[in-house]
Amino acid sequence: MALTTYQQQEILEQRNNSQLTRRAVVSELENILYEPMPLLDHGFIRVIDYMGNDTAVVQAARVSYGTGTKKVRQDAGLINYLIRNKHSTPFEMCEIKYHVKLPIFVARQWIRHRTASVNEYSARYSILDNEFYIPDLEHLAGQSSSNRQGRGHSLSREAGQRVQDLLREDAERSYKTYEYLLNEGKLARELARMNLSLNFYTQWYWKTNLHNLLRFITQRSDPHAQYEIRVYAEAMEKTLKLWVPLTHNAFTETTGSVN
Amino acid sequence: MALTTYQQQEILEQRNNSQLTRRAVVSELENILYEPMPLLDHGFIRVIDYMGNDTAVVQAARVSYGTGTKKVRQDAGLINYLIRNKHSTPFEMCEIKYHVKLPIFVARQWIRHRTASVNEYSARYSILDNEFYIPDLEHLAGQSSSNRQGRGHSLSREAGQRVQDLLREDAERSYKTYEYLLNEGKLARELARMNLSLNFYTQWYWKTNLHNLLRFITQRSDPHAQYEIRVYAEAMEKTLKLWVPLTHNAFTETTGSVN
Amino acid sequence: MALTTYQQQEILEQRNNSQLTRRAVVSELENILYEPMPLLDHGFIRVIDYMGNDTAVVQAARVSYGTGTKKVRQDAGLINYLIRNKHSTPFEMCEIKYHVKLPIFVARQWIRHRTASVNEYSARYSILDNEFYIPDLEHLAGQSSSNRQGRGHSLSREAGQRVQDLLREDAERSYKTYEYLLNEGKLARELARMNLSLNFYTQWYWKTNLHNLLRFITQRSDPHAQYEIRVYAEAMEKTLKLWVPLTHNAFTETTGSVN
Amino acid sequence: MALTTYQQQEILEQRNNSQLTRRAVVSELENILYEPMPLLDHGFIRVIDYMGNDTAVVQAARVSYGTGTKKVRQDAGLINYLIRNKHSTPFEMCEIKYHVKLPIFVARQWIRHRTASVNEYSARYSILDNEFYIPDLEHLAGQSSSNRQGRGHSLSREAGQRVQDLLREDAERSYKTYEYLLNEGKLARELARMNLSLNFYTQWYWKTNLHNLLRFITQRSDPHAQYEIRVYAEAMEKTLKLWVPLTHNAFTETTGSVN
Repeated sequence: MALTTYQQQEILEQRNNSQLTRRAVVSELENILYEPMPLLDHGFIRVIDYMGNDTAVVQAARVSYGTGTKKVRQDAGLINYLIRNKHSTPFEMCEIKYHVKLPIFVARQWIRHRTASVNEYSARYSILDNEFYIPDLEHLAGQSSSNRQGRGHSLSREAGQRVQDLLREDAERSYKTYEYLLNEGKLARELARMNLSLNFYTQWYWKTNLHNLLRFITQRSDPHAQYEIRVYAEAMEKTLKLWVPLTHNAFTETTGSVN
Repeated sequence: MALTTYQQQEILEQRNNSQLTRRAVVSELENILYEPMPLLDHGFIRVIDYMGNDTAVVQAARVSYGTGTKKVRQDAGLINYLIRNKHSTPFEMCEIKYHVKLPIFVARQWIRHRTASVNEYSARYSILDNEFYIPDLEHLAGQSSSNRQGRGHSLSREAGQRVQDLLREDAERSYKTYEYLLNEGKLARELARMNLSLNFYTQWYWKTNLHNLLRFITQRSDPHAQYEIRVYAEAMEKTLKLWVPLTHNAFTETTGSVN
Repeated sequence: MALTTYQQQEILEQRNNSQLTRRAVVSELENILYEPMPLLDHGFIRVIDYMGNDTAVVQAARVSYGTGTKKVRQDAGLINYLIRNKHSTPFEMCEIKYHVKLPIFVARQWIRHRTASVNEYSARYSILDNEFYIPDLEHLAGQSSSNRQGRGHSLSREAGQRVQDLLREDAERSYKTYEYLLNEGKLARELARMNLSLNFYTQWYWKTNLHNLLRFITQRSDPHAQYEIRVYAEAMEKTLKLWVPLTHNAFTETTGSVN
Repeated sequence: MALTTYQQQEILEQRNNSQLTRRAVVSELENILYEPMPLLDHGFIRVIDYMGNDTAVVQAARVSYGTGTKKVRQDAGLINYLIRNKHSTPFEMCEIKYHVKLPIFVARQWIRHRTASVNEYSARYSILDNEFYIPDLEHLAGQSSSNRQGRGHSLSREAGQRVQDLLREDAERSYKTYEYLLNEGKLARELARMNLSLNFYTQWYWKTNLHNLLRFITQRSDPHAQYEIRVYAEAMEKTLKLWVPLTHNAFTETTGSVN
C-alpha cells in the first residue's frame, strides 16, 4: 500500500480542513478520518464520511425533537435493549462510508452484502496497478479436514515459500501480458483486464448503515469466514468502536453478534 | 403544527451547538438544520442530518483519494453526465435524514418507497395527539373526469365548507372515543388507536440516499401524485437545492426527473 | 369475509383448471391453492402462486444441474444445516404469493417488511367496502403492566361490549360520511377515504421469498407481536408447512426462528 | 459448454417429468425449461423455474379474485399502460430463475444488480473446471476512441490471433499452477483459487422478478454494455418473449426500455 506523494497530499489536505457543523460530531472518529489503515500486503480501509452517532440511534427510537436524554447511562440502556431485542431500524439511522482497497477474490465475497452502496474503480475505464496479494507464510495453509470450505494447518516454511513463488510468478506474468495487450496489442481495456488473476487489487467506495455494518462484521469476522476478509471486518470493528462506543459495547458484550 | 415550548427549546439547543468537523459541510443546508418547515395544517419536515455534498458524488464516481478537481465547472459537467446517463450509484453516496409529521393516509403512500430507513412514532407505545388534517377549501375537489385516480374541479365554497365540517366532526368524535377507550375504557393503546381515522397525523424519522431522494421527488411531485404528498415532495426539493445545487440543477434542467 | 357469488365462481374456476408443468409441484399446497383461509372477522389469506419446494433449496445450495439427491433424508440434513448456520441465500430461491385482506392498522405493521412485493387495492381509484374490524370479547384487553407496547388482562364482558359498541358506532358513522362525501358531496375518492378509520379492511397481493417469509413469521408470530397480525403469521405458517415441510421442520424443531 | 453425460441425463430427467398444477402455466417457456442455451465459448443460461405470466401482472394491478378479464386485448392494453406510466409493482409479481455459466469478469458486472437472489458455485468448497473464455476474433477490438469505457475497431486477424494465444497460454498456465497448488502444494481451495484469472467460468443460480429482469435487460443489452454481458442479456430477452409476450411487446414496442 505505497500511496503516491500526490495521494498523501490529497489526504493531508482533507484532514487539515475543518469547518463548523451543527450535526453530531464524533471526535474519536474524526481523528482517523481519511487516514488509510493498512491491511494485507497492499490493501487498506479509510473512513471517508459518517452520519450520526450513538445518540442518533436513541433519537430515532424515540422519534424525538431533540437529542433526547443527556445521560449516557440511559442511552446505553436503551441501546442494549434494542440490540437484545433485535430492533434494528434505529441502527439504520447512522451511516458510514469507506474507501477500501482489496484483492478481487475478497471483493467477490464482500459484494454479496447487497444492502450497501458501491462505486468500484472501473477496469473498463482505467488501468489497474501492478499490485497483487501474496499471503504471508503463516496464512498459507492446507485444506481443513473438518471444514469443507476452510483451511487447516499451516504449510511448512519451505512449502509455503514455494507457493508464494508460484503465485508471484503467475501474477507477474499475468500483469506483463496485460500491459502488452494494452500497449503493443492495442486491445480495449475491458478485454485486456480478463487476463488478471483474482489476487489483483481493486478498490471501491463502500457505504452502509450501522445495522448492516453490524451484520457485515458479525458474518465476516466469524472464524468460518476466510482470513483475508476477516482482517477487513476486524479493522471495521475498530472504526465501529471509535464511532459508536455504546452500540459497539452492546454488540460485543450483550450478544456478540447481530443477525 | 404548534410545537410545545419544550420542543422549541430542544430544537434551539441543537441549532446553537456547533463543532468542528473534517467532513464535507454544506452551509446553506446547515442554515435550516433542525428547523421545521410547516406543511398542510399540522405537518412539517425538518432536516435532521446529512452526509456528503455534490463533491462526494464526483469523488465516488472517480473512486478518488481526495476531493477531486477543485473546479465547480468540471464537477457540474460530470454530474450532468451521470444524471443524463442514469449512472445512479455515485448519488447513493450521499444521505439525508428528515423528521416528518404527516397524515396517516400520506404516510401510507410514502412508505411504498422501500429503499429508505424509517422509525415511526408508535401508537402501541404512545398516545397520538389530537391533530388531524382538514383540507383547505381550494384543495377540496371532485373526482377527476379524465383521471380515474385524481381530483378535478374544486367544490363550491359552500359545498367545501360542508365537507370540512363533516370531516372535522367525525375526526373529533373519533378522538373523543379514542380518549374514552384509553381512560374510562382501560383499553390497550394498540387497540384503541384503531378508532382514529386516516387523516390523523403521525410522525417519523425517514432517511434515504440522494439517488432515492431524487426518485421520491420525481414520483411524488408529479402532477398525478396526490396533492397532500406533493407538498412534502416539493418541500424536499427545496432542501435538495440547498444541499446539492449541482445535482439539483442537473436533475431539473437536464432531465426534469430521475427513474 | 362474505365473498360474493361472483368471487366464489372466479376462485372455483381457477381451482378447476389444471395443466401439466415440468416445474416442481407441491400437491399439499395445490390442494388449498386460491382458497381463502378466514381470519379475524372479515379478513383472509389465499395462496395465489408459489415457485419451488424443499428440493429447490437443496438444488440452489449445490448449484446443481438436476434435482440433486433423491433421498429425503439427505435433503433434510442439508436444510437443517443451512438453517442452523444461517445460510439464507438458498431459501431465497423459493417464492410465494398471497392475496390478503386485513385491517389497515395491521397493514401498517406488515408493510414495514420491505423485502417483498406489494400491490394494494387503491382507495384513490376504487371505493372501499363497508367492512371494519371489531375485536372479539376475548381479545379486548387493557394495557399490559409489564410491556409498554402490549396488552394485558381481558376486559370484563360488560366493559368489552361497551368497547365493541363504541368502535362499531364510530366505524358506521365514518362509513356513512364516506358515502355521503362520495355521493352527495361529490368529493374525489382520494380525499373522501381519509374519513375512514384504521380498522377498515384493505387488501393486497403480497409476494416474498422463503427466507423473508421465515423472517416475517418469526417476528410476527412472536408473543410480543400484536394479536391481530399474529393470526396472519400463524395462518402463513400453516401454508409454510404444506409447502416446504423439511424447511418448516428445520425452522421449528431446530431453531424456532430465523433472523 | 460440454455437459457431462450425467448432467445431460439429469436435465433430461427433469424435462421428462410433468405433473398437474393449478398455477398459471406458460407452455412456450415450458418447452425450453431446463435446456441450456449456449453462450460465448463455454457459457449458458437455462431457465430453471418461473412463477406467473402476463395475466398475473393484470391480476396484481387489479388485486382481483380471479384471472381478471379473459380478453387478451384488454390485458395488453393494461400492460402497455403500466409500462408507459412506470407502474412497476405489478411486474414484481412474476418471478424467474436461471442457471447461468459465465466468465468471472462478467459475473462481476452482473452482481451489481442487487435486487436478485444468487447462489454461486463456491471455489472455497469445490474445484473450478478448466474452462476459460477466449473471445472470437471478431470480438477482439481496440479501445474506442469516442467512448472511454468501450471498444472500437476490431483487430486485424493476425493481431487478434496473437491476443488469443497470449490469453490462452496465461489461462492454461494459471490453471496448471492452480492444480499444482491443490494437489502437490496441498493448499486450501480458498487460497489456490486466487491464481485463476478473470476469464475463468463460474456458475450460479440467479432469480429475480419480472420488473428487475426488464431493468437488467434494458441496461445490459444497451450498446454501451460490454459485449460479453450483452449476449447474456439478449438470450434472456428471448426467454422473456416466450414467458410474457404481452409484457415483452409493451417493453420493446412502446418504450424500448425500463428504468
